[in-house]
Amino acid sequence: MHEIAIKSDVLSENALLAHHNREHFHAHGVYVLNLMSGPGAGKTTLLERTIDALRARHRLAVIEGDVQGRADADRIGRCGVPVVQINTGNACHLDARMVHRELERIDLGHLDVLLIENVGNLVCPAEFDLGEHDKAMILSVTEGHDKPDKYPVMFHVARALVLSKIDLLPHVDFDVERATRAARAMNLDLEVIPLSAKTGVGVDGWLVWLEGRIARAKAR
Amino acid sequence: MHEIAIKSDVLSENALLAHHNREHFHAHGVYVLNLMSGPGAGKTTLLERTIDALRARHRLAVIEGDVQGRADADRIGRCGVPVVQINTGNACHLDARMVHRELERIDLGHLDVLLIENVGNLVCPAEFDLGEHDKAMILSVTEGHDKPDKYPVMFHVARALVLSKIDLLPHVDFDVERATRAARAMNLDLEVIPLSAKTGVGVDGWLVWLEGRIARAKAR
Repeated sequence: MHEIAIKSDVLSENALLAHHNREHFHAHGVYVLNLMSGPGAGKTTLLERTIDALRARHRLAVIEGDVQGRADADRIGRCGVPVVQINTGNACHLDARMVHRELERIDLGHLDVLLIENVGNLVCPAEFDLGEHDKAMILSVTEGHDKPDKYPVMFHVARALVLSKIDLLPHVDFDVERATRAARAMNLDLEVIPLSAKTGVGVDGWLVWLEGRIARAKAR
Repeated sequence: MHEIAIKSDVLSENALLAHHNREHFHAHGVYVLNLMSGPGAGKTTLLERTIDALRARHRLAVIEGDVQGRADADRIGRCGVPVVQINTGNACHLDARMVHRELERIDLGHLDVLLIENVGNLVCPAEFDLGEHDKAMILSVTEGHDKPDKYPVMFHVARALVLSKIDLLPHVDFDVERATRAARAMNLDLEVIPLSAKTGVGVDGWLVWLEGRIARAKAR
């Protein structure tokens, strides 16, 4: 009970700070996406594709969350957009405070879209609101179609589920329909987008979804 | 600082309980392995292979850790060995208290080897000692060779690193030598074992390592 009480305090404090971040984003008309997955599902590769496609129409910036290191920030930096690396130390997720601290280093007044890559983890990142508009999660087809039942919170809070690495479908035992059904059983409105960031197949569907979400946020 | 202090308390309480578990295991001559990985790296499939190979020589039991559900416990139960499912609720890792609570349901007096499958997560499970003899981690080759730098604690505490799904090597961009070098830079004594639990290639190397560890524990 002691641990549960502490966790509940941490989460309510986080909710307040997330609300504060949201006000910042709203004041500056910045759309924010929180991208989450287990380790190595392809978040950074999808971000690279996304930046390439969106940068002609939107002013972009990226926040990279990792336990340590700045390998992903360096990759994203090569795409030519501003990037901030957050190292969480021994925390397995980003929280609203970490993001808030970095907002000073990002010029929100000259930004349209902020893309946040969370720490690779399917559990805790799902519980920590960062003040983003949307959460998207990536599940690689190599991880298996049994994941919705095992990581229910993540599937519940996501607005879009990207099924990544579909170029590997011929080599793995992954049932796209079964995964889609199981995920939608938890989240009726979930948008399911199969793609391969490597070959580019399906990436258009992702971009259409994302542009729709950006347009919707800007219209409010 | 507040959160760090709480975490430090949680970890010292866990260390005491882990020590207590260790005394139980030692008193009954039970070897205990804590198997960890990100989601979908193939822990359960490797466990199935391991149980098939070891059950003729050792009395086995399994603890399955998942946020929710008992799909893995059902799979392991079909292998014909006793299995206990721990559901962690919103915790992203097993801790020593959860394992201790279940030890009443496991007959340690008639057991040689206890295999624990942790929650799929490369961050927090690494910090929570369960009282086990060895920690082994699995990294699927689909996750990329950049993982040692991103999840340093896990690579540091593991005694063996299984590189799984090597049947997919022709289809992914994974450099086994580079991953091995990066992992050993953090952990000189790390045993690196590439295998495919699907085709069986390399599984012998895993079993030789595990039998060696079991024999060493029994001899003490």
